Amino acid sequence: MNDRDLWSRYKKHLCDCPGIGLKLDISRMDFDGGFFDRMAAPMDRAYEAMASLEAGSLANPDEQRMVGHYWLRAAEQAPNEQITAAITQTLAQIRSFADDVHRKRVTPPKAPRFSDLLLIGIGGSCLGPQLVSDCLGSARDRLKTHTLDNTDPDGFDRVFERIASRLKGTLVLVISKSGGTPEPRNGMLEVEQAMSRRGLDLAPQAVAITGSDSRLDHHARDQGWLRRFEMWDWVGGRTSVMSAVGLLPAALQGIDIDELLVGAAQMDRVTRSRDTANNPAALLALMWHHATDGHGARDMVVLPYKDRLLLLSRYLQQLVMESLGKQFDLENRPVHQGIAVYGNKGSTDQHAYVQQLRDGLDNFFATFIVVLKDKTRARGGEVVEVEPGITSGDYLCGFWQGTRQALYENGRGSVTITIDQLDARSLGALIALYERAVGFYATLINVNAYHQPGVEAGKKAASSVLETQARLVASLREQSTAVTPDELAEQIGFADRVETIYHILEHFVANKRGVVRARGGKFRWKG
Amino acid sequence: MNDRDLWSRYKKHLCDCPGIGLKLDISRMDFDGGFFDRMAAPMDRAYEAMASLEAGSLANPDEQRMVGHYWLRAAEQAPNEQITAAITQTLAQIRSFADDVHRKRVTPPKAPRFSDLLLIGIGGSCLGPQLVSDCLGSARDRLKTHTLDNTDPDGFDRVFERIASRLKGTLVLVISKSGGTPEPRNGMLEVEQAMSRRGLDLAPQAVAITGSDSRLDHHARDQGWLRRFEMWDWVGGRTSVMSAVGLLPAALQGIDIDELLVGAAQMDRVTRSRDTANNPAALLALMWHHATDGHGARDMVVLPYKDRLLLLSRYLQQLVMESLGKQFDLENRPVHQGIAVYGNKGSTDQHAYVQQLRDGLDNFFATFIVVLKDKTRARGGEVVEVEPGITSGDYLCGFWQGTRQALYENGRGSVTITIDQLDARSLGALIALYERAVGFYATLINVNAYHQPGVEAGKKAASSVLETQARLVASLREQSTAVTPDELAEQIGFADRVETIYHILEHFVANKRGVVRARGGKFRWKG
Repeated sequence: MNDRDLWSRYKKHLCDCPGIGLKLDISRMDFDGGFFDRMAAPMDRAYEAMASLEAGSLANPDEQRMVGHYWLRAAEQAPNEQITAAITQTLAQIRSFADDVHRKRVTPPKAPRFSDLLLIGIGGSCLGPQLVSDCLGSARDRLKTHTLDNTDPDGFDRVFERIASRLKGTLVLVISKSGGTPEPRNGMLEVEQAMSRRGLDLAPQAVAITGSDSRLDHHARDQGWLRRFEMWDWVGGRTSVMSAVGLLPAALQGIDIDELLVGAAQMDRVTRSRDTANNPAALLALMWHHATDGHGARDMVVLPYKDRLLLLSRYLQQLVMESLGKQFDLENRPVHQGIAVYGNKGSTDQHAYVQQLRDGLDNFFATFIVVLKDKTRARGGEVVEVEPGITSGDYLCGFWQGTRQALYENGRGSVTITIDQLDARSLGALIALYERAVGFYATLINVNAYHQPGVEAGKKAASSVLETQARLVASLREQSTAVTPDELAEQIGFADRVETIYHILEHFVANKRGVVRARGGKFRWKG
Repeated sequence: MNDRDLWSRYKKHLCDCPGIGLKLDISRMDFDGGFFDRMAAPMDRAYEAMASLEAGSLANPDEQRMVGHYWLRAAEQAPNEQITAAITQTLAQIRSFADDVHRKRVTPPKAPRFSDLLLIGIGGSCLGPQLVSDCLGSARDRLKTHTLDNTDPDGFDRVFERIASRLKGTLVLVISKSGGTPEPRNGMLEVEQAMSRRGLDLAPQAVAITGSDSRLDHHARDQGWLRRFEMWDWVGGRTSVMSAVGLLPAALQGIDIDELLVGAAQMDRVTRSRDTANNPAALLALMWHHATDGHGARDMVVLPYKDRLLLLSRYLQQLVMESLGKQFDLENRPVHQGIAVYGNKGSTDQHAYVQQLRDGLDNFFATFIVVLKDKTRARGGEVVEVEPGITSGDYLCGFWQGTRQALYENGRGSVTITIDQLDARSLGALIALYERAVGFYATLINVNAYHQPGVEAGKKAASSVLETQARLVASLREQSTAVTPDELAEQIGFADRVETIYHILEHFVANKRGVVRARGGKFRWKG
């Protein structure tokens, strides 16, 4: 298609949402003239399913749960008054607690005020807050945010080393829906120890966000933590960013959470429309379906041309892959669905792998995200011309266009989402756009987007490793002779777990935790 | 295969490199008993090609260039004395310059010493240094490193805002092989302006790493910059981390660059062996070939279980995809090769997309990277028990084993690279391992790993956007009436570029740069 035809196609299919300041361009996807008609009936089913979900159906059938993240920004639409009240009250509590911290009505015992925020979570309880923090933060944040999002002892040390002198002014926010996820539990215990070594107590500096009556909830109550906020069972981790999970740290950091909610609510209103041509979430879902043959045949490469949006691709990687990567469909037939998502940011990634995107495998489609306004700050930061009449931002914009064209020329499709500016409102809108696109797409491929049965197997296997560790240490401690992993496996009654035992022994040796190597591939306890 | 058979398979195929403290496990890949025999002849050709490359052949035939990154850590192996001398002398200059900065023999004009390092580069000139800095850095770094790796005006502002008060003590390192890449050029100009606004000159705080006689080289010489280091044409950007590109910033930060080089040299010696079963680079390349059918049929998911290795997957994404993602093979036949690479870190990513990896599409293989020693710091950071006898590191190790098993059970393959500890030496070894695996694999699929012809199209298209911008601004300035993008396109003689013109106008409007919207989809100059 030549440039003039492309311009016509661009205008014909442009989904312009001026009220939100967002446009979706699908002109560089090679769907044919009959595509939307063919997809009309499946798309109608997706609208129906979404309406039913928003009305409070048990949209997560496996877990018999409602799926309510859309109510978080429109409490009046919740299916009952208790939920409406819970949302409204929690929001008021978040605003008031953040205000108390900012105005020093809530202070730590050994510092004049809270200066830092340490966010402890993982997965859905962490990527959303991290995205919001990095995207909207600045050197003028009310609290400086740090994160523990793993169970890496060295990773913990690294953060503690960085904030050591400010630990006494650090508000510790532990986020865990179930209250029993090991990573945030370990993070909490490690920070408690790090504080204790400096003569500090965790409790008067700690806040929990967790399910009511969870282990963490009880712990926080028993220990007299500063505050507890609830994570409701009708909000999934990967769609929790508009609940206390995302809003509390954002409010503490000084981000306008009302604008985040307004942006999401606006997008929700636009994407409830059944006028597909003007519904960007429906169009996105349909483009995914077209690009991947409804079966993940192509990867989704996400390239925001804006440094502040670097984490968006990781956020979407989680939202899309955990929601759509399913073994069974809703009728329990094996389907092995999903879409792989990756990307960092443009133009940087052009220098990393656009070589492959243009010349190599035809196994992806690109999503470009463009921000028209170059500078986030209202004032400050003079505009610099890098050539007469040309700014760095012109280059950024030119690189997006250049890459889009270079891919198109070689038959590689792309969609482009353009936002007028990047702020709390447009970020809220972007998040809501993708939440609904994922929901629509799940119906198109007939899977449950709101459960994650596949993660249990790995967790169980990991538990059995730790169980094995306890048994082997107990056994090794009692004998003075050296043994092979095979012998040890027999001794502790885990004859099948020799390799696991070997890896545990290697790990113990490397960390000088009582086990040493002996001749003949043997190990013994040294203490 | 049951656990006992797997343990046998593990032991049989384990590639142990005790001299390096690295093991490669391929037992969870489902190659059959005849695989290595079938691949013996192609692998021999890969060994031959690599030997010829290391001996100084024009291994990048398109560009008629030698490929010499292996000489950087074994200068005596370079094909002539000039190259040997250049490597040795540059290394001495790097050590001596870093020493001068640390001992305050080289200081900035308006601060007592250099306290910060601002690294400006993109792609190969940036990801390597970023990886080394993040992986090996600590709160005790001699200089604190910051990076500009894009042409995003807001991204520049964000970094300048962060280091504003320390700009007078910031050493600015501009890295650009060609010396003409727009992103680092723009970064340089923006930092020059930011310094100028604070009454600072760039030149006495600036160092260039660039090709001899490049535009940047001349600019740095003419402006009297502190120092210039050479980027040789026989080192490609994505394999430049052991040249001045990676070594100078690392040395300035206080990292032991000799250990980086030793680790790489050790790995080079091991991976020169034609004993495939004991050559981890050959085994990796063969596993990629097996997993992807030699044609990118599966994505490579890279999961280091260590926070410090977070950037490794991005580094490998560039190294693998830019090297292997090729349209033509060495006989100029269209092949559209490549392997898509993504990943961040474990166990974090387990909560993002292991759901899809286990249950969803069978379109990937995993690479786990495990570090046996939990803590990087020699002293400090007490070991915390999160349960009796169990540490956070035990959990991390358990999660790796659990995920590996959960994937294997569902027929998803993985390789595991285990290193004893993470330090400059093992990082050097890891980098060298992947450099050679990529080289071997390129021969297996018969492509040139060392050029990137596909990135030119996007650059040219971007240039034409900027050219269009200059023309349209000139035209719009001269007329008082409002025009449509179509009319403007006709006026400036770019009738085909209406859409480009439209996007430029939208960008100008959003940034209040003289263009405003008028009725009827028209635009006019307001000035």
